[in-house]
Amino acid sequence: MSSTISAGKFRRLQKLADRQGRFQMLAVDQRGSMVQSLAEAASVTPDEISHASVAEVKRRITAVLSPSSTATLIDPDYGYPYAVDVLDRDAALLLTSEEYGYEKAGPRDRERRTRLIQDWDVAKAACAGADAIKLLLYYRPDASAPTLQHQQEICRQVGLACVQHDLPFLLELVAYPVDASSDSPAYAREKPKLLVAAAKEFSQPHYGVDVLKLPFPAELKYTTQFAAGAFDDRQRDPVYDLDAVRQHCRDLDEAAAVPWVILSAGVQIAEFLENLRLACTAGASGFLCGRAIWSSALDAFPDLAALEQDLAAIAMANFRACNELTRAALPWTSHRRFAGSGPQIAQRAADWYKVYHT
Amino acid sequence: MSSTISAGKFRRLQKLADRQGRFQMLAVDQRGSMVQSLAEAASVTPDEISHASVAEVKRRITAVLSPSSTATLIDPDYGYPYAVDVLDRDAALLLTSEEYGYEKAGPRDRERRTRLIQDWDVAKAACAGADAIKLLLYYRPDASAPTLQHQQEICRQVGLACVQHDLPFLLELVAYPVDASSDSPAYAREKPKLLVAAAKEFSQPHYGVDVLKLPFPAELKYTTQFAAGAFDDRQRDPVYDLDAVRQHCRDLDEAAAVPWVILSAGVQIAEFLENLRLACTAGASGFLCGRAIWSSALDAFPDLAALEQDLAAIAMANFRACNELTRAALPWTSHRRFAGSGPQIAQRAADWYKVYHT
Repeated sequence: MSSTISAGKFRRLQKLADRQGRFQMLAVDQRGSMVQSLAEAASVTPDEISHASVAEVKRRITAVLSPSSTATLIDPDYGYPYAVDVLDRDAALLLTSEEYGYEKAGPRDRERRTRLIQDWDVAKAACAGADAIKLLLYYRPDASAPTLQHQQEICRQVGLACVQHDLPFLLELVAYPVDASSDSPAYAREKPKLLVAAAKEFSQPHYGVDVLKLPFPAELKYTTQFAAGAFDDRQRDPVYDLDAVRQHCRDLDEAAAVPWVILSAGVQIAEFLENLRLACTAGASGFLCGRAIWSSALDAFPDLAALEQDLAAIAMANFRACNELTRAALPWTSHRRFAGSGPQIAQRAADWYKVYHT
Repeated sequence: MSSTISAGKFRRLQKLADRQGRFQMLAVDQRGSMVQSLAEAASVTPDEISHASVAEVKRRITAVLSPSSTATLIDPDYGYPYAVDVLDRDAALLLTSEEYGYEKAGPRDRERRTRLIQDWDVAKAACAGADAIKLLLYYRPDASAPTLQHQQEICRQVGLACVQHDLPFLLELVAYPVDASSDSPAYAREKPKLLVAAAKEFSQPHYGVDVLKLPFPAELKYTTQFAAGAFDDRQRDPVYDLDAVRQHCRDLDEAAAVPWVILSAGVQIAEFLENLRLACTAGASGFLCGRAIWSSALDAFPDLAALEQDLAAIAMANFRACNELTRAALPWTSHRRFAGSGPQIAQRAADWYKVYHT
């Protein structure tokens, strides 16, 4: 890859990170999982949770936590129109492009296809003030050809639109089991290579990805060190040890040809902090995390005052702990993508404004 | 006017101001006047000042001063491609749309017509990361019909493009004398009503202006209090007193139907601080100022180290003094444009993302 970067992508990547180039990003774009959590907290069914309730909860999370973030990821449905006026001035804005969940496809309906949000696109997100676009892509390299093609095509489409608007493209890659449960030794064993393959595929320049958002490439609950129930009091049979996990992290870093951050996938904060520590040591540039930071607050729903109190106490402490660990993260400007010289502004010359983006 | 505002304009206006809604904005988009100053400092002719020199000076001004600003105004020619990587992360970005200077027109070539920068437009500025667009418009209500039409049409064109990209439109209005010198009792007398007329005209909703950038609506050097040479040791015949000037400021505030800031027009810092104090008392929401803050540093050119030293000492102290005075400014969110209720996000509803900007 070239070490040059367009002015628009540079400026916005700079805003997504802190002054040292480390990403401390907050996710509030959960939809289905948030409705589910609120329903459980209120002891009602998910269809009894109103749009207004979800919007209000997202608004409060954004108000309390976005000041601790370098960027906040919001969805355009429940989130942005209700949270824009409480989003911290200095937190950059990521907007989501994909519909929640996935379409089942392939043999025995075991494959997952991403769908874009209808009546919403990168052009609208750019107008609304997005500093970057996020796309979540389910991926298994062994999926059927039509599914692979569908996922790759969606990625190219969003990547191209981001180039057209000169917005950074943050791609979230999520692996999934076909037959096993996602909490099983079989999937714990399979996960590292699935993610390495995914990171390798979508780091290719023709997808136009600027930052990869990746799951932790192993399962700490299945390590000899943590299998005795360290995180959830459930005992499991270990499938690898921490040294092997460190190697999986290094493999993932090698596979990712662009800066990458890790996501929390709903694990508890103690486990996420270990994930983050290991990922940053291996070359990650920070995190984009939601539930690990703020999920306990949802238990207070529908008591919004109590929910907000939990955000201000527990969630903010969690956030601070995460931010602390990013001191060991690799500044995105130091990523090998920029060939050791750091990012160089493309077309820097007296005729920049004439040739820019034409 | 409606108290509603689109999400994109809201989010970016929020970033142009501080957390209290006061604009502390830095202008570094000078072109002709900067070349002139650098030539004088180096005792050469303007055509001996290279593009690279101007770009380097702008880069240093941006690096040293943008952290003190809530937003920084840069031109796309000498400025942005060279300064984007030193522009402070938390300073919003304004980009200039007009060519430097003006086209002479009208009877005896005494009128001034604004020209847009060729091969540059609002779409490119939006892609490059602009949080707002600035247009400078020369205006006299008594200009010939073709000149009035030309200036109004350019304003509508840029205003419409800003609506299309949901970017705030910051319009700078500059009056000018037809026969008198700009430093004359005649022009000092004429200036208040010229600016009131201009502010009234371009506050009309069909121009789509979000913030007006206005000259101080009088000349302090021609007040009884300051005419003895307080600012430049030159004695003048006063044409009004400070009470009359305060009334001109209130008249301007009444004429401006949108939030407004004042500009420095190259006056010395002592005079600008008085201008700013009076304007903020009358309802201004802050300033967008360049030369009054940093012009003394240019005297050191071509010694860039000395120039930077002056920026870090004198210019930063000037900036702090200006920022201090904005405590009395009206937060833009409290402007009567928003009808007392503050800005309300337009189309806030579950289908926001579907109907937004279509």
